[in-house]
Amino acid sequence: MCQLLGMNCNTPTDICFSFSGFRVRGGRSDVHKDGWGIAFFEGRGCRSFIDVQQASDSPVAELVRQYPIKSTNVISHIRMATQGRVALENTHPFQRELWGRHWVFAHNGDLKNFKPQLIGPYQPVGDTDSERAFCFLLHHLRNEFASAPSPERMFPVLRDLSARIAEHGEFNFLLSNGDFLFAHRASKLSYIIRKAPFATARLKDEDMSIDFSEVADANDCVAVVATLPLTDNEAWQEFGDRTLNLFVNGELVMSDSTLNKAQS
Amino acid sequence: MCQLLGMNCNTPTDICFSFSGFRVRGGRSDVHKDGWGIAFFEGRGCRSFIDVQQASDSPVAELVRQYPIKSTNVISHIRMATQGRVALENTHPFQRELWGRHWVFAHNGDLKNFKPQLIGPYQPVGDTDSERAFCFLLHHLRNEFASAPSPERMFPVLRDLSARIAEHGEFNFLLSNGDFLFAHRASKLSYIIRKAPFATARLKDEDMSIDFSEVADANDCVAVVATLPLTDNEAWQEFGDRTLNLFVNGELVMSDSTLNKAQS
Repeated sequence: MCQLLGMNCNTPTDICFSFSGFRVRGGRSDVHKDGWGIAFFEGRGCRSFIDVQQASDSPVAELVRQYPIKSTNVISHIRMATQGRVALENTHPFQRELWGRHWVFAHNGDLKNFKPQLIGPYQPVGDTDSERAFCFLLHHLRNEFASAPSPERMFPVLRDLSARIAEHGEFNFLLSNGDFLFAHRASKLSYIIRKAPFATARLKDEDMSIDFSEVADANDCVAVVATLPLTDNEAWQEFGDRTLNLFVNGELVMSDSTLNKAQS
Repeated sequence: MCQLLGMNCNTPTDICFSFSGFRVRGGRSDVHKDGWGIAFFEGRGCRSFIDVQQASDSPVAELVRQYPIKSTNVISHIRMATQGRVALENTHPFQRELWGRHWVFAHNGDLKNFKPQLIGPYQPVGDTDSERAFCFLLHHLRNEFASAPSPERMFPVLRDLSARIAEHGEFNFLLSNGDFLFAHRASKLSYIIRKAPFATARLKDEDMSIDFSEVADANDCVAVVATLPLTDNEAWQEFGDRTLNLFVNGELVMSDSTLNKAQS
C-alpha cells in the first residue's frame, strides 16, 4: 500500500509545509520506501519529480521540500510496492495527455485481476495495476467525450468507471488535469479546507508548524487531501467510504458514492 | 532559437560533465534564458526536469548537475523562445506515450505556418511549433505501425515525415523512446562517439575537464549530440545538412538525407 497527498487551490500555493510531513512517511516515520513522486501544475504546464529512492533520503525530495513551486494542483505519492517491481516506470504519479491537457494520476490500493483490454492510445509502460487503471479511465473518458467536458459533466462518468475498477479491490486515487482535482476514497482518505480565518498548523510527522495567517491572503482557499491527516491540531475530515469527490478552487463541490454504480 | 543536447549509450552513464557545460549556455555563456529541460530514460522509465528559470540559475539545474543519474538515453534543451510564451507548457523536452513506451522530443528551429490538422490522440498542450511537430510525428508513426517497429523499420518513415516538416523551416530535433536516439540536423548539430581508448575532455564553457579513462569501462560506448560542440579538445563531427541519424548503443547506425524526401 502507499500514501497519497493532493492539493487544489484557488491561487498558486506552495506545498512545502505539507510535503515536509508527507515525505518522512517515505521510509522514516512510515514504511513507504519504494519510490515517490510529485506532480505540479503551473497553468497548463505540468512537471513531475519522481525517484526510486525512498522519499526521506532522496536528493530530489530535498529539492522539492526546499524549492517553493507555486501550483494550483499538486498530486504526490509515496510507494510501498504491491504490484510491479521498484522501478521508475512503476513510480507514481503517472502522466498522460488527453484533449490537449496533461492528466496526472496516483493510486493507493491493490486491484486483483484487473486486466482490462486496452486497445486505444493509452497503454501502460510499467507493470502496475495503478497505471492500468489510469489508462482504463482515460480510454473510457476519451470514448465518452470527443472534447474536454466540464468536470461536473465528467463526474458521473468517472464515478461509474471508478465503481467498476473498485470491484477489483482497494481503489483510492487522485486525478487532476490542472483545473480541478478528483479524489476517490475506498478506505482511507481525509481532507481539510484551509481558508480565512487562518490559524497555525502543526505537522504530525515533523517538528514543524506554520502560521497560515502570516503567509496566506484573505481570499485564499486551499484543499489538502491525504491518506492520513498530516497535522495534529486541525479538524481533518474523512471522506465517506467508496465516494468520488471533486475539488475546484480549493472547495469540495461534488461528492457521491461509488457503491452499486458499476456499469459494465 | 535554442540548443540541444542528447546522449545515447550502451551502458547507463551520467551526463553531469556535458550538462555542466551545456547549462551555462542557458543565460550565462549564451542567450538561451527562456527555460530549459532534461529527460532521462532509466530502463522503460523516464523522468524529466523542466524549469522556466534560465538553466544557469535554476536550482533544479543545479540538482541535475550534481546528482549523477545513470541513463542510456538523455535529451536536454535550453530555450530561447521564438513561438509560444515563456511557460512550463512550452518548455522542452515534450513527452508522450506511444505503443506502451515513453517518447521524448526536443526541437531547435522555427517552423513557419506549420499547422497540421491533428485529429488523433496527440494534441498539443502549449503553443509551440515544436510540440505540434512532435504530435504530428507520433500521430503518423502510430498510423503507420500498429505496434512498435524496430528503429530500422521506423527510420524511412521518420525520415520522410521529418522532410515534410522541414519544408516549413529549420528543424533540428532529438527523439528517443529510451532504446535509441534519433537526431535530425537542419543546420546545426554535431556529435562525438566516446569509446576506448578514452582520453581527457575539456569543456568549452566551463573550466572543467574529465579523464574518461579513469571513469569509463573498456566496453563503454557513448554518443553525445549537441547543437555546438561542448569540448574544445575533441574531434566533434558535424552531421550533414538535412540528415536524419539513428544512434543505438552509443553508435551511429543509420544516416540519410531528408532533402527531397517529403511525401504528402
